[in-house]
Amino acid sequence: MLPSNDPRRESWVDIPEGSDFPIQNLPFGILSKKGGEKKVGVAIGEYALDLSALYDFGFLDLKTFSHHHFENTHMNDLLNLGHEKIRQLRERVSYLLSTESDDLKSQTKRELFLVKIDELDMHMPVKVGDYTDFYSSEDHARNVGTMFRDPDNALLPNWKHIPVGYHGRSSSIVMSGEAIHRPAGQQKPQDAEVPVYGPSKLLDFELEMAFVTYPGKPMGDRISTTEAKDYIFGMCIFNDWSARDMQTWEYVPLGPFLSKNFASSISPWLVTLDALEPFKVKGPQQDPKVLPYLEYTGDHHYDIKLDVIIKPDGGEETIVSQSNYKHMYWNMVQQLAHHTVNGCNMNGGDMLASGTISGPDPSSYGSMLELSWRGTKPLKLKDSSERKFIQDGDTVIMRGYCEKDGVRIGFGEVSTKVLPSK
Amino acid sequence: MLPSNDPRRESWVDIPEGSDFPIQNLPFGILSKKGGEKKVGVAIGEYALDLSALYDFGFLDLKTFSHHHFENTHMNDLLNLGHEKIRQLRERVSYLLSTESDDLKSQTKRELFLVKIDELDMHMPVKVGDYTDFYSSEDHARNVGTMFRDPDNALLPNWKHIPVGYHGRSSSIVMSGEAIHRPAGQQKPQDAEVPVYGPSKLLDFELEMAFVTYPGKPMGDRISTTEAKDYIFGMCIFNDWSARDMQTWEYVPLGPFLSKNFASSISPWLVTLDALEPFKVKGPQQDPKVLPYLEYTGDHHYDIKLDVIIKPDGGEETIVSQSNYKHMYWNMVQQLAHHTVNGCNMNGGDMLASGTISGPDPSSYGSMLELSWRGTKPLKLKDSSERKFIQDGDTVIMRGYCEKDGVRIGFGEVSTKVLPSK
Repeated sequence: MLPSNDPRRESWVDIPEGSDFPIQNLPFGILSKKGGEKKVGVAIGEYALDLSALYDFGFLDLKTFSHHHFENTHMNDLLNLGHEKIRQLRERVSYLLSTESDDLKSQTKRELFLVKIDELDMHMPVKVGDYTDFYSSEDHARNVGTMFRDPDNALLPNWKHIPVGYHGRSSSIVMSGEAIHRPAGQQKPQDAEVPVYGPSKLLDFELEMAFVTYPGKPMGDRISTTEAKDYIFGMCIFNDWSARDMQTWEYVPLGPFLSKNFASSISPWLVTLDALEPFKVKGPQQDPKVLPYLEYTGDHHYDIKLDVIIKPDGGEETIVSQSNYKHMYWNMVQQLAHHTVNGCNMNGGDMLASGTISGPDPSSYGSMLELSWRGTKPLKLKDSSERKFIQDGDTVIMRGYCEKDGVRIGFGEVSTKVLPSK
Repeated sequence: MLPSNDPRRESWVDIPEGSDFPIQNLPFGILSKKGGEKKVGVAIGEYALDLSALYDFGFLDLKTFSHHHFENTHMNDLLNLGHEKIRQLRERVSYLLSTESDDLKSQTKRELFLVKIDELDMHMPVKVGDYTDFYSSEDHARNVGTMFRDPDNALLPNWKHIPVGYHGRSSSIVMSGEAIHRPAGQQKPQDAEVPVYGPSKLLDFELEMAFVTYPGKPMGDRISTTEAKDYIFGMCIFNDWSARDMQTWEYVPLGPFLSKNFASSISPWLVTLDALEPFKVKGPQQDPKVLPYLEYTGDHHYDIKLDVIIKPDGGEETIVSQSNYKHMYWNMVQQLAHHTVNGCNMNGGDMLASGTISGPDPSSYGSMLELSWRGTKPLKLKDSSERKFIQDGDTVIMRGYCEKDGVRIGFGEVSTKVLPSK
């Protein structure tokens, strides 16, 4: 039997050329048929495999799983089973969908278990208990430091010692496709004596990726960089919406708050670390040397190509950034080891985002703040309109995929339209 | 019939002199008899009234409630019914426990419905979705600003315009009685070139109070200061544990993270805003004038006396701070209006803490950082030992109550022992 991410494994499900979801991927999501119950599904080509039906008909291990693991509003109960059981589940699904198995191939069974993704509603895959946002791209931190502080000392003294992070709002993380409203709040124009109130004028996206955790250890215990991979389930694309004018005025000394917590958007399918295994790449040399609890062995960066697109209301798409997750300075195992080194506990379904992913080239910057260099270099879209920041009616789309040896592991997209402030 | 917080209302349950829980209080909590299911209870004197049993025997409105509202691991389902229904529930419980009603007075019924609190385990009352910590005491902000920044400009420019707040960690909020471990993490001694790793040397409490929300409005909508009280269920005492040495090194630019998220502790009983109504007092004159969305009418500060106690391992209690919740600059309706002015959504069971509650007098400072003025003025305990910060083996206890017209509405206590770092 071929392993689940062997490039030679093929599925009896027809996979269109360039699909994000070949049999080597098998990402997990929460879906519903129109008006139906929410269930756990796995994407394959243009279809989703209904794991709830698969369980009910006895195709999944009845000793390990129960009905509520697969028919549920969220995936948390399933994730609470931990890495080993979920890895086995994915191997089993991979086998059932492969040409090595005839179990599901009959017309009746296909119709029972496979549903066209475009006929489904996708929902939040997990109920996010706690959401943390890191700040782990050196180019991003350097760009922001150059713009707002001191070009000669762009990185703050702690940046290369600490994977800097902060807590964000989980209630306002929404699914791709859900429109958001421009936030309103306090801003203080540079020449003003006192702050003013109104809709943000500097609405921005942040291109990020997030990972979702398995349950961690009890409070007081730590997860080491070596252990960390067994506590990470999978990843999605994450748009950390930001209101720059509100951020500047509010963030000293306790960090961003209303400038961030009005909305974040995610792509619907969680791609497992197991599927991403072949796309590991070496990270940057970390200098100065990090403290021992942040040292790691092996490669824990991933080569994930990321595009950001702006689509004006009724207009066509313009790619405004092409970045890559491999540009991160701090990787996921360092982030998780740092987050728990003080004994902080993780639950299944917690979400930890990377921070804006900017590369060294200006075309790879992960926010309008950097792309338009604080509004001084407007971007030209295909319809000849210009953007310094995001306008009402714009849809921001982020797409991501890995590609190697003829296998493409994609994340789908997160697409969010901005509506005017209420 | 007397209203539920009328000082003249009396209970047929014997209430000891000085009890925190007279019939005018009736706070809600989650309890279990040893080894039993978790249920919603209401405190009365030395007893808890088992609402789950009360419901099962038909004493509560069967049209409004279901069994899961009262037998449940948390109170969130109950809170999701909203303010009006919970107010009616509390009125009903008040009537049943009052001398005006004979419904529960028989010996058999007392034994069925009332359980001695000291025979119970108390649990987290809500599953906290999102936890926010404000920074709303002027004296605290001024003390911190004086110590760490500039005595002549102790308050940052935004402080009197914004109820400054930030997101915290909900997974590590624990119940009174649960011991916590001293956190370890990075610190950078002033004379050191690079940071070191180890247990925090400057472990501190922060005396705070927190409020718990009913479900708010959909994303994109705001809750006004006028509407806010209908979205607030009740309050508890909140100890926002802090590691000062880790905080100093990590908090610029995105705010406190590992220095806070290792643990926060709360008192078990949620005292309703309805019970606190008689203890409203006028807040400070706010100058400069706040933006219109932060203006409010009526009184929304509360006169709640607060004590902080240190009890060394095996030793006796020393009161180290006597503060009052009335010292807040920003009140709860302003905090909630600010938090939602950008369209951020609230869920039932979210927790919003006040920030350290310091009064103007040094004896009313709400943290060791301020009480010992950064370690320069050690406190003397009754056993003659000194404290600059909290030592392993110390138990920190916070108690709070209101008193007026012979009625005492108490919060009980939050008591937490500090164990060595693991």
